[in-house]
Amino acid sequence: MEKIEKANQIAVERMMAADPVLVDVVPANEAIPELDKNLVLHAGPPISWEKMCGPMQGAVLGIAVFENWAKNLEEAANLAKKSTFKFAPNHEFGAVGPMTGMTTTSQMLLVVENKTFGNRAYCAINEGLGKVMRFGGNDKEVLDRIRWITSEFGPSLGSALRKSGGIPLKDLIARGLAMGDEMHQRNVACSSLLLRSLIVHLVETSSSSEALARAVKFLSSNDQFFLNVAMAMGKAIMDPVRNITASSVVTSMCRNGYEFGIQVSGTNDKWFTAPVEMPEGLFFPGFTESDANPDMGDSTIVETIGLGGFAMAASPAVAGFVGAGSASDSAKTTQAMTEITITRNPEWTIPSIDYLGVPTGIDIRLVVETGIVPMINTGIAHKKPGIGQVGAGIVKAPRACFERALRGLGESLGVK
Amino acid sequence: MEKIEKANQIAVERMMAADPVLVDVVPANEAIPELDKNLVLHAGPPISWEKMCGPMQGAVLGIAVFENWAKNLEEAANLAKKSTFKFAPNHEFGAVGPMTGMTTTSQMLLVVENKTFGNRAYCAINEGLGKVMRFGGNDKEVLDRIRWITSEFGPSLGSALRKSGGIPLKDLIARGLAMGDEMHQRNVACSSLLLRSLIVHLVETSSSSEALARAVKFLSSNDQFFLNVAMAMGKAIMDPVRNITASSVVTSMCRNGYEFGIQVSGTNDKWFTAPVEMPEGLFFPGFTESDANPDMGDSTIVETIGLGGFAMAASPAVAGFVGAGSASDSAKTTQAMTEITITRNPEWTIPSIDYLGVPTGIDIRLVVETGIVPMINTGIAHKKPGIGQVGAGIVKAPRACFERALRGLGESLGVK
Repeated sequence: MEKIEKANQIAVERMMAADPVLVDVVPANEAIPELDKNLVLHAGPPISWEKMCGPMQGAVLGIAVFENWAKNLEEAANLAKKSTFKFAPNHEFGAVGPMTGMTTTSQMLLVVENKTFGNRAYCAINEGLGKVMRFGGNDKEVLDRIRWITSEFGPSLGSALRKSGGIPLKDLIARGLAMGDEMHQRNVACSSLLLRSLIVHLVETSSSSEALARAVKFLSSNDQFFLNVAMAMGKAIMDPVRNITASSVVTSMCRNGYEFGIQVSGTNDKWFTAPVEMPEGLFFPGFTESDANPDMGDSTIVETIGLGGFAMAASPAVAGFVGAGSASDSAKTTQAMTEITITRNPEWTIPSIDYLGVPTGIDIRLVVETGIVPMINTGIAHKKPGIGQVGAGIVKAPRACFERALRGLGESLGVK
Repeated sequence: MEKIEKANQIAVERMMAADPVLVDVVPANEAIPELDKNLVLHAGPPISWEKMCGPMQGAVLGIAVFENWAKNLEEAANLAKKSTFKFAPNHEFGAVGPMTGMTTTSQMLLVVENKTFGNRAYCAINEGLGKVMRFGGNDKEVLDRIRWITSEFGPSLGSALRKSGGIPLKDLIARGLAMGDEMHQRNVACSSLLLRSLIVHLVETSSSSEALARAVKFLSSNDQFFLNVAMAMGKAIMDPVRNITASSVVTSMCRNGYEFGIQVSGTNDKWFTAPVEMPEGLFFPGFTESDANPDMGDSTIVETIGLGGFAMAASPAVAGFVGAGSASDSAKTTQAMTEITITRNPEWTIPSIDYLGVPTGIDIRLVVETGIVPMINTGIAHKKPGIGQVGAGIVKAPRACFERALRGLGESLGVK
């Protein structure tokens, strides 16, 4: 239909016109005024306490203790059972979160502003690897780290960002793609370049040399620090693409460990869900498939904007890491994603395929027609709370989401 | 000849066994006790004052003022004409230097130690871009920067390196190759990773927050900072490969703006030279071929160990930057270099060509037999002192060097 084509053209034009800039770190309740006591924003589409997987329940209990809504995990568990906590998807509040994706009132959030459209998007700060809340960790070590991020590191990073005038992300991503990052499972280049851009400002704004030493130690030892920035950027790029009548472009893809959910521009904020799949990939030594949790997190926002699995050709090292074949195979994944997208982003190119742009603008019609589903590079979480990442792999977005969304779009256009 | 094959096997085994670690920054006269008043080490094979190109003469006059051997450039020029200064190649004193490559008694030098063989190699600290001594700059701005490097930045970097216990370079290069560096014309990944590895130690050892701010500003704004580290590493790897009777492996390649010179393991420290060629490449806006200086510098040590032009496939962005064709063409340069090398380095691999190792161990016999000469990724200097880099391109090592070296090797083996 011509109407859909035109709407999709507007959608991808808005994606291309985006100018995302990492501008600040702010308290969550300042960023999202709706946040108050007992409201927990989580990754993925809507979900109830009962349906949540182990890691997500673990994270909820932990964040309740962090927020002083409960004295300890036991009390938090009792409150959860009594439905004291309210749950809502990050995506419905301008936010995203990796894995369990906890966003609550007292946390500090990265702020990416899309200068072209004036909207802002938020993501919590990456906690590093191992026992962390995004994998369901909730003990003292985990909470102490989030307290330090909230009280010292986050505010310091915010000061440095304000002093810098903001870090433009479009160019940074372009450089990262030329340096082997796909911004989902590999962020070492962008994490390093971001540190490099910020270090002068961090030195100048730090309250003490001890605080500075802690900040740079944290920043410099975390290859995935940039992932959360990339996620907030993805959200900032896609939110202005919402609500274009008749557009069949996907505006969000995410998972909560139970269901995979997508939203589509032409159907506003409606969720189309299906059971989430298990990632297929490689496990770290000592772990097997039986340890894996079903896929979760809002990090698939990076695939939604053409990165992650869509940019696999930029990142042959990730192809190996996630068990997706040889370096030359990595170009095939990117090629396949061009079958279900509307265009290639001319500003985000991949040197090894002679500077072709990343496949951009997932069209649910093409997914249903071709049977090719979005390929997502994902970390594999242990199914028990707090153990952490046990592998990395590829997960396919369930085709049923796209079929349901296509029916939903049809209905919105009065087509049976 | 079997004797040559065996000797070459020993040569490449020593290259592979190398364990280069960036350990310190020390005063030049401590690193090289022979350095004293009026002795100037320079890039390339031996050369007299009269034969030096404009930038190299400019650098000599500048460094003489920096060292207080002359009150000003005029006095320095008079002393130069009276043959007051003694000149010798860096390579004969365990050192290397980019472009003009000045090494004198009071400078601070990066120290790379080859832990396997216990030898150390040295290179001055990269001054950044623009008007700098390596391009013949010699005014107050240039000398003040070197004074700051000598008095504040170099010692601070040295403290941080000692505190770190040293930065192992073998793995860093492996990561850099997966991030688009070839370590000659592109060092942004390794420069960023090095900053990341050192920043905690720099924060902890800095004398003041002002000094720290100056250090990080300098470090974080220079994409090519790592080049001089890579050069010292190359020298540290190749020095133990010298003096293997009958080996036809190249141990150094370098240029002084007048001649290109090589040394070969089986002929000890003998130089084989030929007129240096002009680089062919792309010029920065406002400059043309008529501005270019003939090729100079010891930086070709990186090609000698399989990086730079030899690793072009790792760095399609450089292929474009130096005018060497498309991204997919970049693999051809690396492929051509396998024709003149003995092996591939299994620890330094290139993802985009399915993890083939960089071509390693240049055999002068293969160069003469095939007519394929080493391809060098080089910066193009302005022929007038102090203007700086005006472009980047590829320069071919002159075939005559290799023919002469082969005759020299034959003589050393009693073959006519």
